[in-house]
Amino acid sequence: ATYKLLLLPGDGIGPEVAGGLQVVLDALKDTGLASFETETDLVGGCAIDAHGVPLADATLQRAKDADAILLGAVGGPKWAGVSYENRPEAGLLRLRKDLDLFANLRPAICYPALAEASALKRELVEGLDIMIVRELTGGVYFGEPKEITNLPDGSKRAVDTQVYTTGEIERIAHVAFDLAGKRSGRVASAEKHNVMKTGVLWKEVVTRVHSEHYANIELEHVLADNCAMQLVRRPKQFDVLVTDNLFGDVLSDIAAMLTGSLGMLPSASLGAVDEKGLRRALYEPVHGSAPDIAGQDRANPIAMIGSLAMCLRYSFGLGEAADALDGAITDALAGGARTADIAGEGTSAIGTKAMAETIANALKAR
Amino acid sequence: ATYKLLLLPGDGIGPEVAGGLQVVLDALKDTGLASFETETDLVGGCAIDAHGVPLADATLQRAKDADAILLGAVGGPKWAGVSYENRPEAGLLRLRKDLDLFANLRPAICYPALAEASALKRELVEGLDIMIVRELTGGVYFGEPKEITNLPDGSKRAVDTQVYTTGEIERIAHVAFDLAGKRSGRVASAEKHNVMKTGVLWKEVVTRVHSEHYANIELEHVLADNCAMQLVRRPKQFDVLVTDNLFGDVLSDIAAMLTGSLGMLPSASLGAVDEKGLRRALYEPVHGSAPDIAGQDRANPIAMIGSLAMCLRYSFGLGEAADALDGAITDALAGGARTADIAGEGTSAIGTKAMAETIANALKAR
Ligand SMILES: CC(C)[C@H](C(=O)O)[C@@H](O)C(=O)O
Ligand SMILES: CC(C)[C@H](C(=O)O)[C@@H](O)C(=O)O
Repeated sequence: ATYKLLLLPGDGIGPEVAGGLQVVLDALKDTGLASFETETDLVGGCAIDAHGVPLADATLQRAKDADAILLGAVGGPKWAGVSYENRPEAGLLRLRKDLDLFANLRPAICYPALAEASALKRELVEGLDIMIVRELTGGVYFGEPKEITNLPDGSKRAVDTQVYTTGEIERIAHVAFDLAGKRSGRVASAEKHNVMKTGVLWKEVVTRVHSEHYANIELEHVLADNCAMQLVRRPKQFDVLVTDNLFGDVLSDIAAMLTGSLGMLPSASLGAVDEKGLRRALYEPVHGSAPDIAGQDRANPIAMIGSLAMCLRYSFGLGEAADALDGAITDALAGGARTADIAGEGTSAIGTKAMAETIANALKAR
Repeated sequence: ATYKLLLLPGDGIGPEVAGGLQVVLDALKDTGLASFETETDLVGGCAIDAHGVPLADATLQRAKDADAILLGAVGGPKWAGVSYENRPEAGLLRLRKDLDLFANLRPAICYPALAEASALKRELVEGLDIMIVRELTGGVYFGEPKEITNLPDGSKRAVDTQVYTTGEIERIAHVAFDLAGKRSGRVASAEKHNVMKTGVLWKEVVTRVHSEHYANIELEHVLADNCAMQLVRRPKQFDVLVTDNLFGDVLSDIAAMLTGSLGMLPSASLGAVDEKGLRRALYEPVHGSAPDIAGQDRANPIAMIGSLAMCLRYSFGLGEAADALDGAITDALAGGARTADIAGEGTSAIGTKAMAETIANALKAR
């Protein structure tokens, strides 16, 4: 089969890491592991520059028609003055919401070769392998009212609304428990039920889904503030960690940073499986657009390439091709290839392109 | 002057660390450094057991009449079945809200003697001294609506509301900038203006307060998710960190954990200064009620005793007595005194009482 990919490189280092991705897509074709048709379009700041909006309707339609979307990164200081409604991030949020990509999977893996790069002591992170399952289309990101109003005395009042329904929590809980079944069989669920009503409902629904369907999985509830602490103190206690949109945003960034390899972490944002057995999906690096190093061939393309590996696995069921690609990344690292962000002191670094080529060659050599 | 203190030991290890506090209060009297009248009352689970509510009206009145409040900790599994409205935490939240204690000061200090206890590499945390300024009476903790409703299809919908007004942000910004003026002169302000309208207003107001009143202070804006990352990656880049109630809850717990000495970190929750120059204030350890070790004389009383030092400084202007008490804590540690939580491998630990007595003796010996 030939899959239809929509490539949305975006802003900052986005186009560079997407360039690295293209090298690997070509290598996948050459080796016969998988074959793609790719289209490229604009999202974020570059879309604002071209169309005045961070996601054009035509782009959204292309995203709906694609088998999977690969996105680089959005945003940058250039668009700091743009209105809230039209800021670069709104393009990404619209994609998530309109494609109903409710399940955000963020693996935090500590590569042995890079354990030293972590701020944490080696023994605390070596072998770390956490899967954060973040709810991505609900919560405070999308609840209404969300507005700033003027008060009679001339001051202002800002409101955001965190909303969760039973159904929204059920479906993300299923994703987490299903994943745990294929891993160590442990799920931790993080919320603030001691302060938030959404936390109360979250805990209640996760508990019920667990007891009704997943007797073989171990479930633990943890307060989000304590969870942040525990991630720093003893991260390996976690396997699958399920949480809401806002806590997921913060906790997954902590977990990513622990690994010492932020430039290497991929993510998947998945929709529900439809009648035809298909699901919409978007794959993107966890890192941002890093405008400070954009255009210098310095960015690490591994998070972007790893996102493609997740795409092969989750969208197309190509487990073997995904394993081969993940293996090629490991081979490249084992061979000593390092971009600047992961080059230890005294080690020399290669550029974005060279890293992508090294991985492509490792793939062909497998 | 004789100050009126209200002691609210609370639950779990609360009564033990409050017992340690009493030893130090006596020593302060003996040395003539400061003199107190203390009353003791109930809050949290123990108040539920006694009165059916986590904070009786009479206790609230006593809190209003006191010059300062010292609180141990609230909560525990014993009250897991209590209704949301009457859970132990509601007692603490009512104190914060009804006394208008909007400014929560949480210093995260890495004691040199304990740098090794941090999960982070020594060089990243040695000398760490961050002051987190958390807004404590607004945001998602208190905004309305906050409810769970039944939907027609039998499922539920939960809502929490994050609200901030210009005035609420202004007053906490002033606290942060004033503190920074007495420290390194740097403030970082954390929010999610890329997703939340309260974040947009937060950033706008902090920026204005800064440019109108604090030209000599350096201000940096940081997204809350990135802030969590940066705290792990390079914590010493921060001095004063100001943020909202919910982000403050999570970020201050991360900062506390970094120091490797959670059992040692105090906090102050301050109200506005009134016409008579007085301000309401509550002081409490950052750590929780730790029910797993309650009643075993194992808890570390230093966070509670350090909270008294903050009380001397912020409520009574007794800088010298506060310095003496902080010095006594340092002396006790330098002399090798360790409770179980901070005793390194192969070091023997002393109990709560013995630690408090060691500090009291160190105070008298100064
Ligand atoms: C860019 C931003 C809107 C986004 C978020 O807050 O979800 C990012 O931080 C992420 O985690 O994907
Ligand atoms: C006990 C709980 C309500 C409280 C909070 O969430 O504010 C605690 O975590 C804290 O940080 O003081």
